Amino acid sequence: MEQQNPAPGTRRPGGRTARTRAAVRDAVLTGLGEHGYPGLTVEYVAERSGVHKTTLYRRWGGIEGLVADALDLAGEDGWTPPDTGDLEGDLRALAREVRDSFADPAAAAAPTAFVAAAFQSERAADALRAFYAERFARCEAVVERAVARGEAPAGTDAGAVVRAVSAPLFLRLFVTREPVDAALADQAAAATVAAVRAGAFTTGAGTGPATAPPAGG
Amino acid sequence: MEQQNPAPGTRRPGGRTARTRAAVRDAVLTGLGEHGYPGLTVEYVAERSGVHKTTLYRRWGGIEGLVADALDLAGEDGWTPPDTGDLEGDLRALAREVRDSFADPAAAAAPTAFVAAAFQSERAADALRAFYAERFARCEAVVERAVARGEAPAGTDAGAVVRAVSAPLFLRLFVTREPVDAALADQAAAATVAAVRAGAFTTGAGTGPATAPPAGG
Repeated sequence: MEQQNPAPGTRRPGGRTARTRAAVRDAVLTGLGEHGYPGLTVEYVAERSGVHKTTLYRRWGGIEGLVADALDLAGEDGWTPPDTGDLEGDLRALAREVRDSFADPAAAAAPTAFVAAAFQSERAADALRAFYAERFARCEAVVERAVARGEAPAGTDAGAVVRAVSAPLFLRLFVTREPVDAALADQAAAATVAAVRAGAFTTGAGTGPATAPPAGG
Repeated sequence: MEQQNPAPGTRRPGGRTARTRAAVRDAVLTGLGEHGYPGLTVEYVAERSGVHKTTLYRRWGGIEGLVADALDLAGEDGWTPPDTGDLEGDLRALAREVRDSFADPAAAAAPTAFVAAAFQSERAADALRAFYAERFARCEAVVERAVARGEAPAGTDAGAVVRAVSAPLFLRLFVTREPVDAALADQAAAATVAAVRAGAFTTGAGTGPATAPPAGG
């Protein structure tokens, strides 16, 4: 028995539904890059994807649903965080990935448009929140490995650490509108590692002496 | 000889021009709070401020100019950073100010709309960049005082420090769309102080041992 109004992509993964969803997602990303969220229309997505407008409205509801689903799909990639063998190397690689991913204006256009869309659409904001929650959860592995190696105190708040290393870059990209470079990424990594070692990210911690081995190893 | 097309607010400070500019600014802030940048119109600002539409177009050019001037005017307040007597207290107070200023949805609406407007208007982005550059420059006093007290190494990058303590809050407010609370503000302050003490913000620094007195004071 066929479902009515199935959620996008739930039927026949890899089949026609999956191909349609991917074509629609690509059209949404291209449109966001070219026009931004305020300029994106269902008509554009229909023309670009070759999927009929009535199908888009029936399955995605409209622009908000299309953008949210494109974000959901973006979160389904196989990305894993770097594993360089030590915490500072991993955090530096994470910060540099943020920097690199927004350094090319063409590549940055769609992710930037997602961040912008969240200011105007509650549904886009929910999808963005879910995307980053899942992405940062994957990043926590770098902190867990550091704890296991004795590089970070037990009880280190992994979620806070992986957000802290990205935050100075996102601040400049989307709030203060200042340039970001590799030196800033490295500074963010160095600062975060120093704070981890000092126990500043340990639950309930102040800035007292480290419970982990001292810095300088 | 009277200038033609003087920059807004340059004539007779405190007089009619200043009052008009302030009334227009208030209307822009209210409009941004109510409708956001995409919904703000010159018609709305004219009606709300009582300043004729043709005057608004002549002196501000349009919506982009109105928003940019409102931001310029917002930067002309007498705000000074906290001075609690020690670096962690100052940074904690700074982070808590960010948190508090966005905790009340009504108070947060206009500043949030400025951040959103920068995604859609290059002129708003320029004004936002100038606003934050000037605001963070004022904040640098807290780091300079800490260096003078011996709490922070000489050569500490004050601009990077005051951005680092705010960044985890701005990341959650405007990118990951996660809640921010006082505990997060305190964690950001503790992490930043630990990194400062370890020398991670000293120009050219790695994560080697602190050149300042050790933590735990």
